[in-house]
Amino acid sequence: MTSIKDVAREVGMSTATVSRALRGLPRVSEDTRLRVLKAAERLDYVASPAAAGLVSGQTRAVGVVVPFVTRWFYGSVVHGAEELLRERGYDLLLYNLAGDQQARHRVFQTHLLRKRVDAVLILSLTPSAEEIASLNRLDRPVATVGAVVPGFSSVSIDDLATARTAVQHLVDLGHRRIGYIGGDLEGQLDFSAPLDRLRGYREAMAAARLRRNPAWEVTGDFTVRGGLAATRLLLATTPRPTAIFAASDEMAIGAVHAVRETGLRVPEDVSVIGIDDHEMAEFFELSTVAQPVHEQGRVAAQLLLQAIEHGPAFEPAVLTVPTRLVVRRTTAPPRH
Amino acid sequence: MTSIKDVAREVGMSTATVSRALRGLPRVSEDTRLRVLKAAERLDYVASPAAAGLVSGQTRAVGVVVPFVTRWFYGSVVHGAEELLRERGYDLLLYNLAGDQQARHRVFQTHLLRKRVDAVLILSLTPSAEEIASLNRLDRPVATVGAVVPGFSSVSIDDLATARTAVQHLVDLGHRRIGYIGGDLEGQLDFSAPLDRLRGYREAMAAARLRRNPAWEVTGDFTVRGGLAATRLLLATTPRPTAIFAASDEMAIGAVHAVRETGLRVPEDVSVIGIDDHEMAEFFELSTVAQPVHEQGRVAAQLLLQAIEHGPAFEPAVLTVPTRLVVRRTTAPPRH
Repeated sequence: MTSIKDVAREVGMSTATVSRALRGLPRVSEDTRLRVLKAAERLDYVASPAAAGLVSGQTRAVGVVVPFVTRWFYGSVVHGAEELLRERGYDLLLYNLAGDQQARHRVFQTHLLRKRVDAVLILSLTPSAEEIASLNRLDRPVATVGAVVPGFSSVSIDDLATARTAVQHLVDLGHRRIGYIGGDLEGQLDFSAPLDRLRGYREAMAAARLRRNPAWEVTGDFTVRGGLAATRLLLATTPRPTAIFAASDEMAIGAVHAVRETGLRVPEDVSVIGIDDHEMAEFFELSTVAQPVHEQGRVAAQLLLQAIEHGPAFEPAVLTVPTRLVVRRTTAPPRH
Repeated sequence: MTSIKDVAREVGMSTATVSRALRGLPRVSEDTRLRVLKAAERLDYVASPAAAGLVSGQTRAVGVVVPFVTRWFYGSVVHGAEELLRERGYDLLLYNLAGDQQARHRVFQTHLLRKRVDAVLILSLTPSAEEIASLNRLDRPVATVGAVVPGFSSVSIDDLATARTAVQHLVDLGHRRIGYIGGDLEGQLDFSAPLDRLRGYREAMAAARLRRNPAWEVTGDFTVRGGLAATRLLLATTPRPTAIFAASDEMAIGAVHAVRETGLRVPEDVSVIGIDDHEMAEFFELSTVAQPVHEQGRVAAQLLLQAIEHGPAFEPAVLTVPTRLVVRRTTAPPRH
């Protein structure tokens, strides 16, 4: 069995430096770290994380709490985070809640508290007071993606401004009757994005001096199927909207299909715009406000590794990543 | 700080029983385990997995190697595995390869060998000889989903029979010219499914005494976009196929769009069938051969926990889960 001394001899460094390099600690140059990792691999040296963890208190793993790993947005954030963590020699522990309150309770009250992670990344959830207490007890850096929580680092888009951009695009095209498909504000899992996007829609409507109609604000639970059902409701109103803003591309894709199934055309009769730039958006020629999803995962992971490195001196950072309007073929001026 | 003795006192059991219950070891009834877990939670008892791991040699975690976590199929298998593991008190370490050979090398040669997992689940990859050697060195149970590897447990569908079912459905409808969209057999990551599905297509064509045409066998890399591009090639052949079998629903969805963009109708001019019963299949009214995806993740995780429990006495199990034909609205008899 190869020992850390064998690795140190191989690269001509002290065991302390080799240990720091293998554990990804600061004050080791990237060159040195790579040389050590290669030598360790050549010699078949594998550290026991359990033994190393007892000494350093570090686990070299980050826990990621995901509402639905099967959905494109969350899968893409996880992909970005996993990529950066792997590059830095960290493992990713995945906690998928799948809309299950019991799972959520167990993850926050039991799994995370086993202290097998150095940091926690939470996607699109606003933790409850009880959960925040639990995270504070864990005493590890926490970051969120898609939600801002006081005291934690976060990476997200400006949901309010993003929604305003989408509505303003429709207003600029000349639309006056604009419907909105959002998320359920009373959902089991707590997201802040649905509320902010609804507020953005309302603000942009007010700024353009357009009349709001309660029947033009419907919920579609962020799925294609939900967007389809919501759009059927919107199209049944009189007068019906000439444009629809959906708070996600998946709902917008459902909206496009609902418009077509009623014999109307997109964009001639009804314009549709979403948020995300989902991997299917280009395929459906969907106009949207694009957000960098994979990158949010990478940046959040980076913040957590900085927090681990700097310890209590690290100040939580609240980062907002930019979004941009992408005009494709589902939006056009209304016919008069 | 609560100790294990406090928990034992609370439930009136020995510390040995409490320890076995908390670690999910056998010979503890489910009732007892739940009582102990609840008491531990009530008393805020959190075991240190590092310390527990040094004593028991167990980590209570399973590593899952995923080709692309952002794709629906893999996300759904991970969802099923994570759900079962969480129920049993295990953590899931996610290794996402994202088509990256360097990532793959690092996962197999470094991350997995840190021995921080009790077992490894590999999705849809056939490990190389070097990777199998590495897994053997790890000396932990290994299971695969979507691929059969000698010596490892596996859960998968019968790809050959599933492909034959799809083609036979088209033959039964009266189609004679049937095109095939499959995966790249020379892909960077090694899957066995593409080859088996191609063989199933060829066997079913031969059994029905239908002429094969090399121009009717094209590749679509298992994405919507790939299915779209592949179908454009199929439709450019003379005579063109009256039906298309795509080896995945995502490619079939691309095929449906490609047919429509050329002004042809589905299913009147061209029938389309896929494999999977993807979450979007019902939305697109796609005929398909459905496979239980979430369940394959659960069953594979179960096999691994059994293997952990029984140790070397456990014989690897090769399980095949059934698929079934789902006829929706993209397949019909050809027009004559």
